[in-house]
This record gives sequence, C-alpha cells and structure tokens, in this order.
Amino acid sequence: MPEYKAPLRDMQFAFYEVLQAEQHYQRIGAEDASRDMVDAILGEGSKFAEEVLSPLNRVGDEQGCKFEDGQVTTPAGFKQAYKQFVEGGWPSLAGETEYGGQGLPESLATVLNEMVSTANWSWGMYPGLSHGAKLTLSKYGSEEQKQTYLSKLTSGEWTGTMCLTEAQCGTDLGLLKTKAEPNADGSFRISGSKIFISAGDHDMTENIVHIVLARLPDAPGGTRGISLFIVPKMSVEDGSTNNVSCGSIEHKMGIHGNATAVLNFDEATGYLIGPENGGLKCMFTFMNFARLGTAMQGVASAELSFQGALAYAQDRLAMRSLAGPKFPEKPADPIIVHPDVRRMLLTQKCIAEGGRVFIYFCAMQGDILHSQASEEEKAEAEALMNVLTPIAKAFLTETGYEAANYGMQIFGGHGYIAEWGMEQIVRDARISMLYEGTTGIQALDLLGRKVLSNRGESLRFVTRIMHRFCRDNETKGMQEFIKPLRKLYKEWGGFTTKLGLKAMRKPEEVGGASVDYLMYSGYVTLAYFWAAIANTAMLALQDNTISKQEKAYYESKIKTARFYYKRILPRTRSHKEIMFSGVKNLMDLDADHFRM
Amino acid sequence: MPEYKAPLRDMQFAFYEVLQAEQHYQRIGAEDASRDMVDAILGEGSKFAEEVLSPLNRVGDEQGCKFEDGQVTTPAGFKQAYKQFVEGGWPSLAGETEYGGQGLPESLATVLNEMVSTANWSWGMYPGLSHGAKLTLSKYGSEEQKQTYLSKLTSGEWTGTMCLTEAQCGTDLGLLKTKAEPNADGSFRISGSKIFISAGDHDMTENIVHIVLARLPDAPGGTRGISLFIVPKMSVEDGSTNNVSCGSIEHKMGIHGNATAVLNFDEATGYLIGPENGGLKCMFTFMNFARLGTAMQGVASAELSFQGALAYAQDRLAMRSLAGPKFPEKPADPIIVHPDVRRMLLTQKCIAEGGRVFIYFCAMQGDILHSQASEEEKAEAEALMNVLTPIAKAFLTETGYEAANYGMQIFGGHGYIAEWGMEQIVRDARISMLYEGTTGIQALDLLGRKVLSNRGESLRFVTRIMHRFCRDNETKGMQEFIKPLRKLYKEWGGFTTKLGLKAMRKPEEVGGASVDYLMYSGYVTLAYFWAAIANTAMLALQDNTISKQEKAYYESKIKTARFYYKRILPRTRSHKEIMFSGVKNLMDLDADHFRM
Repeated sequence: MPEYKAPLRDMQFAFYEVLQAEQHYQRIGAEDASRDMVDAILGEGSKFAEEVLSPLNRVGDEQGCKFEDGQVTTPAGFKQAYKQFVEGGWPSLAGETEYGGQGLPESLATVLNEMVSTANWSWGMYPGLSHGAKLTLSKYGSEEQKQTYLSKLTSGEWTGTMCLTEAQCGTDLGLLKTKAEPNADGSFRISGSKIFISAGDHDMTENIVHIVLARLPDAPGGTRGISLFIVPKMSVEDGSTNNVSCGSIEHKMGIHGNATAVLNFDEATGYLIGPENGGLKCMFTFMNFARLGTAMQGVASAELSFQGALAYAQDRLAMRSLAGPKFPEKPADPIIVHPDVRRMLLTQKCIAEGGRVFIYFCAMQGDILHSQASEEEKAEAEALMNVLTPIAKAFLTETGYEAANYGMQIFGGHGYIAEWGMEQIVRDARISMLYEGTTGIQALDLLGRKVLSNRGESLRFVTRIMHRFCRDNETKGMQEFIKPLRKLYKEWGGFTTKLGLKAMRKPEEVGGASVDYLMYSGYVTLAYFWAAIANTAMLALQDNTISKQEKAYYESKIKTARFYYKRILPRTRSHKEIMFSGVKNLMDLDADHFRM
Repeated sequence: MPEYKAPLRDMQFAFYEVLQAEQHYQRIGAEDASRDMVDAILGEGSKFAEEVLSPLNRVGDEQGCKFEDGQVTTPAGFKQAYKQFVEGGWPSLAGETEYGGQGLPESLATVLNEMVSTANWSWGMYPGLSHGAKLTLSKYGSEEQKQTYLSKLTSGEWTGTMCLTEAQCGTDLGLLKTKAEPNADGSFRISGSKIFISAGDHDMTENIVHIVLARLPDAPGGTRGISLFIVPKMSVEDGSTNNVSCGSIEHKMGIHGNATAVLNFDEATGYLIGPENGGLKCMFTFMNFARLGTAMQGVASAELSFQGALAYAQDRLAMRSLAGPKFPEKPADPIIVHPDVRRMLLTQKCIAEGGRVFIYFCAMQGDILHSQASEEEKAEAEALMNVLTPIAKAFLTETGYEAANYGMQIFGGHGYIAEWGMEQIVRDARISMLYEGTTGIQALDLLGRKVLSNRGESLRFVTRIMHRFCRDNETKGMQEFIKPLRKLYKEWGGFTTKLGLKAMRKPEEVGGASVDYLMYSGYVTLAYFWAAIANTAMLALQDNTISKQEKAYYESKIKTARFYYKRILPRTRSHKEIMFSGVKNLMDLDADHFRM
C-alpha cells in the first residue's frame, strides 16, 4: 500500500491561490479562519493522516471488521486512532459553537477530510457518517435533542448513522416498510430491518445515534409517508441497551475496514425529528453534503493511486524509450519515459488535482449558504451546489475509479498482487459509484431535477461563472484554454435546451441521455477548473522573483492543463453524439428478448 | 454468483450462421468436424461447464488455493472436476492424433473453451496453461520429447506452464537472469526464480511440465540470449523430485482459485528445446494463441456478468418508468424498464455476443494456418491473426472489464456484496488487461510491430474483408450498417498512413497514439462483426417459415447491432481526436515534476 503523503503544496495552491480562500473567508465573515491558523491545522492534520491513519489502511483491508456474538470489532488500531482523533479535537472543527464546536467553515473541514479520506477511506467513514446525523439534528432537532445528541456527535464522543436502505429498496425509498408506533410518552417503537448501514455498528464509541427512516401508522404510501427518527444504540436516560441489534455485517469487495451493518430494530425506542411524513424532504436537504463527501472518494482514490504509481514509474525499469535510451547507464529505462505510462499518470493527476479544486469550490458554496451572505449570493451558491453536486459525485467517482485502475495498470502484473496495495485502492473505490445514489441516479437528478425542471436556470449560474472567467482572462497565453472552454459551455447550454424540448415530447429521452449528459457536463466543468488552475499559474509566473522550484511547479500546472484539454476533453465528442442518438435504440428490444 | 447457462443458441449462431463453420471445415479439409458431432460435443461440454464447473466458481474464490509445507492445495472440488475433465477426454479434443489427440480443429476447442472459461475462469486456467507447453513441444520438441511429454499433456494426465516472468522483468524479458548450465549428459542445470506462474503448482496431476526461459553460459545479453528448457516437476526417469520448488503463491485481487506461483529452480534438471539463444523467437510463435486465450476472458466476463445482471434487472423493482407505470399491479417497475439500465445491459450484450464472433473468427484463422490450405490463404490468415490478435486481447479485455463493471452497477449496492458474485467477476476480469502483455504492450505490438513495420500491408488484409463484406451486402436494409462501416474502415486505413509518417519523423509518436489507435481499431473491428451479425439475421428473416421465437431472435440481433452503431461506435470520435493530439503533451512534463 502506498504510504500517503499529504500534498500540502497542492492543497494550498487549490485552496488559497486558485480559489482564493482568504478573500472568500473575509467575504463570508469567517475571520477566525486565518491563513496561519489554517496552515497549522493542515500541518497537524497531515501528520495524523500520514502517521496514524495511513499505516492502518492495509491493516483494515486485511483484517476487516469481525462480527461475533452480535458485536462488531474494528481492525487493530482503528479504535485507538479514533480516540486520538477525538482527543485532538478534529471532529468538532466545523461544529456549532453552541454545542461544543469550533465554528470554523465547512470548507476547512473538507480540506482536513481530504487528508483523512485519502490516507484511509474505511476509517474516515466512521467519523464521516456522523455528519448526516449532525446536520439533521442541527436543522430539525429540538433544543433538548441538540443538547443530548448533537453535542456528543460534535465532540466525537458518539458517532451517527443514516438508516435508509432496506432489502427491497435503496434507490426507491417509497417502498420502505420500517414502522414507527407511538408510545404514551411521546416516543415511538421502531420495528424493521435496515441494510447497508455504513459504520452501522462498531467498538469505537459507547453510543451510536441512528437516524432512521420509518412510517407512522396510517401514513400515506410511497415517499410522502416517511418520517425521521432518532434511535440511539444505548438509552441516553439509563444507559440500557435499546432494541437495536446488529444482525450481521456484509462481506464486500472493498472498504473492509468499515462495518456495513444489517440493523434490526425490534420495537426500539425512537424520537421523531422533523415534521411527520416529511422525512424524505428533510433527507434531501443533506443529500448534497453526503454526495459531495462521496465525490471526495473519487479524488482520494485518484490521489493515492497516483502517489503509488508515480513512485513505481520512476523506479521500475523496462524497455528503452522509443526516442533512444534515456538512462544508458541502467539496464533499461524507468517506465516513466514511455508515453503511454505518462498518459495514465497524467490522467490520474488531472482527476486528483483538478477534482480537488472542484470539490473545494463546492464546499465554499456550502460556506456561503451557511453564512450571513446576501440573498443573491446565497441563491447563486445554491444553484451552483444543486447542479455541481451530482456532477461531482458521479463524474469524479467514475473518473476516480478509472484513475485507480490506471495506477494498477502502471504496476503491470504487480498491480494485481495484494501486497502492493494498488488493487485495494480499486476495490475500495468501486463502491463510490454505487452508494449515495448510483451514477445513473445522479444523472437523472442532474438532468431531470436540477437542470430541466427549472428550464436550465440553475445551469445558467454554472455557465455564467465560466463566461465571466473567460471574459476576464482573455490573455494571449490563456487563449488555448479560453477558446475551447467558451465553445464548450455554449454548446452545453445550447444542447440542454434541445434535450429539454425532446424530453417534453417524450419523458424517457431524459433517461436515455442522462449519463452521457452527466459525463459531458463533468468534462466541461473540470475543463473550467483546469483553465482556472492554468490562469492562476500564469499569473504567478509573472513574478520574476519566485524560486526555480516554484517556477517549475506552476509550469507543471500549465502543462497538465494542456494535457487535459488535448487528451481528456475530446471525450465530450463521443458523449455528445451518443446522447443525441435517441432513446429508441435502448427501448426497442423487448425485455424478454435480451437473451434468447 | 450467477449460475452459468451456456448460450448454446448464440454460440451456434456465431459459429455456424455468421461464420459458416461447416463451409470453413470443408474448405480446410476437416471433415471429421461434422455438425452433428460438434453439436454433441457442445451439448456434453455445456453440461460439464454448467453442472460441474459453475458451482465451483464461488468456492474457488472463497477458499482460494492454500500453500502449506511447500504444497499447493486447490479449492475443494477442483481436483475431482479435473479428473472428470480428463476422463471425458476433453483435453485431447484438438490434440495431434500421433500423441493421443482427437485431431479436431482448434476453433472447435475454442468453443468448448468458452464454456469452461465462462463457467469458471480460475479452474479453466489449469488445463488452459498446458497449451503453451503443448505448442512448444509440438513445434520444437524432438520425437523423444514429444513421446515423453506431449502425449501426457494431450491426455491431460499432466499439465504444463510457461515460466517467463522474474521479479525484475515481465514486459522486458531482456532483463531475465535465470541460468542454464550444461551437464555432461546433455541436460542442463536450471537456476533462478520465476514469479507469476499461473497454474504453476497444484495437486491435480502428479507431474507438471514447465517450459522455462533461461540463459546459457556466455549467451548474449538482452533478448537474443534466451533459450527454452523443459523442466518437469518430477523426473520422468525415476519419478524423483526435480529441484523445482514452489516458494509461495500470491495473494491476488481475483482468480483466487488459480495458484499464481513463485517457482524456485535450484539446479533443476532441464532439457533444451528449440535452438540455443532462439527461445524468445520461439515464444513469439505462440504469443497469438495465448493472447487469444486471454481475449476470451473479456468475452467470458461480459457473458457471465450479463447473465447475472439480466436476471436481476428483470426481477428487481424500483421506481416507475418515465413513460408511466409498466407494471401497475406491482409496487414498482422492474428496473429493466429504465433506459440507463438497458444501456448497460446492451453494452454487455454487444461485447459478449460480438466478441464471441470476433474470437471464433480468429480461431478459424488459426485452423487455416494449421491446415493444408493454399499459401495464399495462409498468408491472409496469418496477416489477419497478426493484426487482430492484439486488438482482440486488449480491446475485448478492456471492454469486458467495462461490461463486468456494468453488471455490478445494475445490482446497485448489492453488486458490491460478495454473496451475489458480481464483484468476483470484476475482480477476476481485472487481470486480463495485465497478463500476456498489458493493454499498452498490445497497443505497441499492434501499431508498431504489426501495422507500421510493414507499411500497413497486414492491416489492408483486415480492411479488405470489410470492403468485400460491404460490397457484397449492399442491400437496402443493411445501409444503416454498411455506410458507417465503410466510412470507418477507410478512415482507419487513411489515418494509419498519416500516423506512419508522423512516426518516421518521431518514433515516440507511436507510443503517444498507440492505445487510442488500438481502441479505435477495436470499435471498428467489432462494428464489422456486428454488421455481419445483422446481415446474417436479415437473410434468415427472409424465410417466412421460421418460428415466432426464431424471428424474435434474429430481430434482437438487428436491434442490438443498431444499439452498437448508435451508442458504442461514436467512441471512435474521441479516440481519433486524441491520438492525433501528438506526443508532446505527454512528454513535456519533466519526470521529476509530476508531483512537487
């Protein structure tokens, strides 16, 4: 397993130089987030990620979680690492000050989260999953509920989960069956079985706060009859066991270090949170956040796999460069001389470093939404979030998986062997295209719900920032990026209207075009961020006093942007043609005639 | 794990209807291969694959091979299945009659091999790996060597391996170090360590025949100093143990049921086969065969994953069709109503069923090479083999992996859970892009060695069959396929010349374009086979007397071809643009500046 080394220079470049975090924090009134403090947090956080979490990544895969006598045991070292994490005050970074949090912006927690996630995705999910529960409590909890649960989640003393899926339904929550029956004291008896509960049970904390979707008696069928409940693993009153038991944990392709639990609720005591029958709507409020968290897995997979593959490519000898020996004193050249190895490395680099900017940008929109910014600013941030979240989730996990596979590929046969760890990254990454809504679901969300439902209005917020960027940076050097970017975002806007017209005549056309539409959107969005990166680098290079090292750093950014525009962006050509091929070629075949 | 059901109707369609195997066998004088006999073999073979091998597929993954006290134990049931396989006479199907074989054409063994491979890839590798040893012995062995070894390999009493890779070299065999020192009796003492030896040790047979690459004393350095040796695990003279020991077996991402061995040769007794220092050249003779075998893994992965995903998509309920409920009596529609699920299923179907025809076609070229056909026919067959083999190997494994991933994706979160078996298919499939030469190596082989080295002459054999096909089938119904196919094969030929000119000026351009060139070539080649499939179906539909079921079968082929042309073939647009972007964007970045 590659040892994780936090790319601090690159993270700072993305955060401060490309996205100008300092101005951003001033604008939203987050004066606490000074650069010095942030750098200190990043420095300490990276040590924790590198020294404590990274060495446990392979351990987690090898040992997995154990389930014996109804108890889940996490891999050796996981529990101790969590203790350290809590003692370091990390869980409370962006928490509300009223409940023990440090009140820093969420975008800052995102940067910390990147390091934790990349060093050890399975471990990071334990504190990560608490987020949904925290957000639910923060927005819908009573003051008493907040005092009881939110403060413990903020400190990290307890963790939380979101219990949605049941055996018969994941995507289609309208089919869920878990029941909630009222008790005389205002609490409820929750009964049903939930599956695929990430971090659903473990031995790291003494209590776990489950947020459970269930139906009240006589609730309407479908999605309009779902309510939310708080169900603690242990009673907060007397510390007795609630009737929530872990039935088993799943044997999975990857993320072995994280327990994916079947949770059986057998008249467990729960407390209503949020409006009756309004549970699904409440959930959707936080969907963006959870999906952005999963998008991070794409970046994390690309980054970790890139680190491993780059070191190997610089070290492993095979064949000579087609241009003649580059290292004649060695028995063969290191494989980084070969164009196709570089193609794979540069693709990984594009996804990791471009995706990083993409996700930080989204996190900053989240900051704006939770700040004292003007209504207008918030409206823009919300529109950007709405459109960019499904893109980030699906596009970055699809390309992150591709990048992880390239890392294995660069190792040749060794990539397939467990001890190198490259195949673990692929196995771990694979789930990112499935949970928090599959790629297909993100694509429907994007095209159907986020774009077409308001006639492209939200999308125009996205193309508008691209327009402004192109207008404001029309330098000679930037032409190679500005020209194709302008053409693309105009094309994007243009054919969205065309798709909308097609969909009005035949709604199925949305489903036929959606995934190609999403991937196209992803490539264009990432092109925007790579143009912004190149622009930042060009401006920095105007300063003649920078060191040789810094000069090379900025030049590497421009060259990578060029690679992206020349070798990755042309994929839009295929997606465009395919999405306009019409849904008929998909629907023509009778369901019984796929195999005869 | 999906239970494998041999798609006999589809195999027969590919073999007899599209590729007209009967005429083929008449032409090459293989009268023994009558249709009745072949059908009987397929019927029996499919039973063995479905009833014996398929149930062991998951067992092999779960148990894996064990290595204890220097001994490899295969998963429960593997040994017994192998015994049955030998008793059934299956290994000898295409073996030479002089050494106990049944003398049937290799293409027939390929059809059997498809069933074995799809039912249980890990198991199929044990008899499969014998092929390289058999071919080596058949072509280069002395009569005595053939009597001793080839007859035992043909009957299946023993298995064989190919021992190429060492820790420091896989792709670049010029770096290999294993030594062969002469003994007084004409034999050699072989010393060195080989890794990644598939089926390298096991408990299924009492002996294993290793074909080992090693260097004679004073042999020239690099690839021109490599010779081939036969090294049996047990001495054939006295049954004593030779000094070959299994040092360990690898822990791999997949194919757990097949032992990937480290073999230590410690002055093991070996026998030279083929010319001194000519070993690598001998190896290359059989490369096409081994690579075609790996190409089959792409088809097998797509097929098995398709079978699992199709059943699930017809059964699993979620959401309603965007066109309105299709099954209003059910709580939700089966997911096969959703366009994006169909997109994934149809992609799998295209790769499995089109790839099947592709591989059978290549196998038939192999038949011609080993028949009494005219020199002209053989020259054509050889040119087709040379060009199509790297395409089949890399393109079908890349798209086979994509197809396997779609199978998982259709299962949603359940796809990630081991018990469904869909993730095993992905893990098993992943190695196919690595062994027998990575995708990058196939691409260099195709563009550099097979196409440009003879100025596109071999390629013209391929485009010529497409040209003839288009010319001969200019019906009205076929226009939708003929037109784009004609445009594409002309474009393919045209830009190959352009690439050749670029490469003459700068050899690195080959490496910069090769993988995109290969993928482009793959999509065009598969387009040809899908056009041939559609054409066969259209001709069959002219017969008014066929059953309703048969009519639907042929129509499904035409609809699938249409899907391929509309939704898969446009990928050529991106590959074309990317391969002409030039190698500069890959080479510009200093090797030390990939991460700073």
